[in-house]
Amino acid sequence: MEPRDSEFEQRVRGSFAKQAFMATIGARLAAVQPGQVVIELPFRADLVQQHGFLHAGVVTAVVDSACGYAALSLMPPGAAVLSVEFKVNLLKPAAGASFRAVGKVIRAGRTLTVCSGELEAIGHERSVVAVMQATMMTVRDRPLED
Amino acid sequence: MEPRDSEFEQRVRGSFAKQAFMATIGARLAAVQPGQVVIELPFRADLVQQHGFLHAGVVTAVVDSACGYAALSLMPPGAAVLSVEFKVNLLKPAAGASFRAVGKVIRAGRTLTVCSGELEAIGHERSVVAVMQATMMTVRDRPLED
Amino acid sequence: MEPRDSEFEQRVRGSFAKQAFMATIGARLAAVQPGQVVIELPFRADLVQQHGFLHAGVVTAVVDSACGYAALSLMPPGAAVLSVEFKVNLLKPAAGASFRAVGKVIRAGRTLTVCSGELEAIGHERSVVAVMQATMMTVRDRPLED
Amino acid sequence: MEPRDSEFEQRVRGSFAKQAFMATIGARLAAVQPGQVVIELPFRADLVQQHGFLHAGVVTAVVDSACGYAALSLMPPGAAVLSVEFKVNLLKPAAGASFRAVGKVIRAGRTLTVCSGELEAIGHERSVVAVMQATMMTVRDRPLED
Repeated sequence: MEPRDSEFEQRVRGSFAKQAFMATIGARLAAVQPGQVVIELPFRADLVQQHGFLHAGVVTAVVDSACGYAALSLMPPGAAVLSVEFKVNLLKPAAGASFRAVGKVIRAGRTLTVCSGELEAIGHERSVVAVMQATMMTVRDRPLED
Repeated sequence: MEPRDSEFEQRVRGSFAKQAFMATIGARLAAVQPGQVVIELPFRADLVQQHGFLHAGVVTAVVDSACGYAALSLMPPGAAVLSVEFKVNLLKPAAGASFRAVGKVIRAGRTLTVCSGELEAIGHERSVVAVMQATMMTVRDRPLED
Repeated sequence: MEPRDSEFEQRVRGSFAKQAFMATIGARLAAVQPGQVVIELPFRADLVQQHGFLHAGVVTAVVDSACGYAALSLMPPGAAVLSVEFKVNLLKPAAGASFRAVGKVIRAGRTLTVCSGELEAIGHERSVVAVMQATMMTVRDRPLED
Repeated sequence: MEPRDSEFEQRVRGSFAKQAFMATIGARLAAVQPGQVVIELPFRADLVQQHGFLHAGVVTAVVDSACGYAALSLMPPGAAVLSVEFKVNLLKPAAGASFRAVGKVIRAGRTLTVCSGELEAIGHERSVVAVMQATMMTVRDRPLED
């Protein structure tokens, strides 16, 4: 996949740095490539649901951000990205010492970009615990990104 | 809708209290009825994405919990609830002073319960900013709920 | 909801008439209102899956068309509608003498319109057998609609 | 992936033969492997939407059947498969001389199996025109499959 903005990595890293919620949960931008982004999240006891596993909202947050930034990495200079919608399947309890969210572009259109994402749990073993299919939107000429 | 556990409200409230992530983001269980649950979330600057709106993961977290507990409110005594999957459409930026997530049961089956949810943003005006369609699972006889 | 094209009903009816697949399965456009469209489908033995119920693809077809035309009913003159994505929950087997698909606009944006749809089965009793959450796109200035 | 029923292929082929709707649209079961099924569909003018492309319901029908039978291929003897829900993204107009739906199991659980599917259009070139993420259910001891 060919980026249309040579400074795509700085753009993604700059935008991620503004996502206060990523800092709140302790997520870190691990890798930025054209059309693919990886976010890492260490387990923390304050991120769990009632059974002690990562809350589905936290699962969604890191996979959605990974997908959104995978989409942004291929957008033209000056564009911003918005999540239009996503669907998440939770395959097994999100148990692990840390987690790795990967977002990939499946198809980048002029207005809409479709992505697939997954969350891998890393502990004694590694396994995919959630998968996402998402639609992202290219926003131009709107005062959304500061 | 008819609850099969007369202590459904205590059960939902007890489980919600164990969802550490709800406390982390400042969410509060506002109402528990058979087949419908409401969660309230005040805006906080540490919950946002890059444009200053509530992060889609936070949106998802409160609507997913509302849907999950709406499902649990109709389950038999001793059962636990798991999110199988959900799909979220983000209708507009999640901007507001506070937010109100409503989860409702559409159909409660023996194993699977289908729910619809929405997030309302409350500021100068009120508007629905996200909608969810979700599948929840009744889990029996498994060491998931402590 | 306010139509932006006074001839919205003719436009929807004209487009539906071009959907050869609707004729193939015997579906009929029953009602067109601003932001809401109803399609009726009698049961036929050549539309079933392996258990004798309406195939999920047929369920999807009529609810998707109902949602798409609900969206089109609110679009400006000259615009065409495309299905971007949808998610369907199959609540129970689609058994009945006939079926009624209803599509409704939840939010009509400049580019994207979000809809909800459902399929009701009508036999000895009536019940909702499937629900859809869908995203439709307004397409302008493209040679898609003939 | 390891089938639990050595006669998985006959079982899938037998069930597919009962899906009258697959015959109605001219779909053919092309390949059955443990955890993966391929269905082929030649283009026909009576399967289209208003712009002359394959209707989204037909797209969904063949990908859903491919995913369902991929799931069934891994189920124990005597089990039947039901589609619980699916989400489809339509990446581009479904234009081609023929189409190839591939369904794959991502995770096979005791009750639920999660699949991913896609539809490839084959004409002057080949391209993926739709992707699906689906949940299938193992049904035992119920009078659903004849």
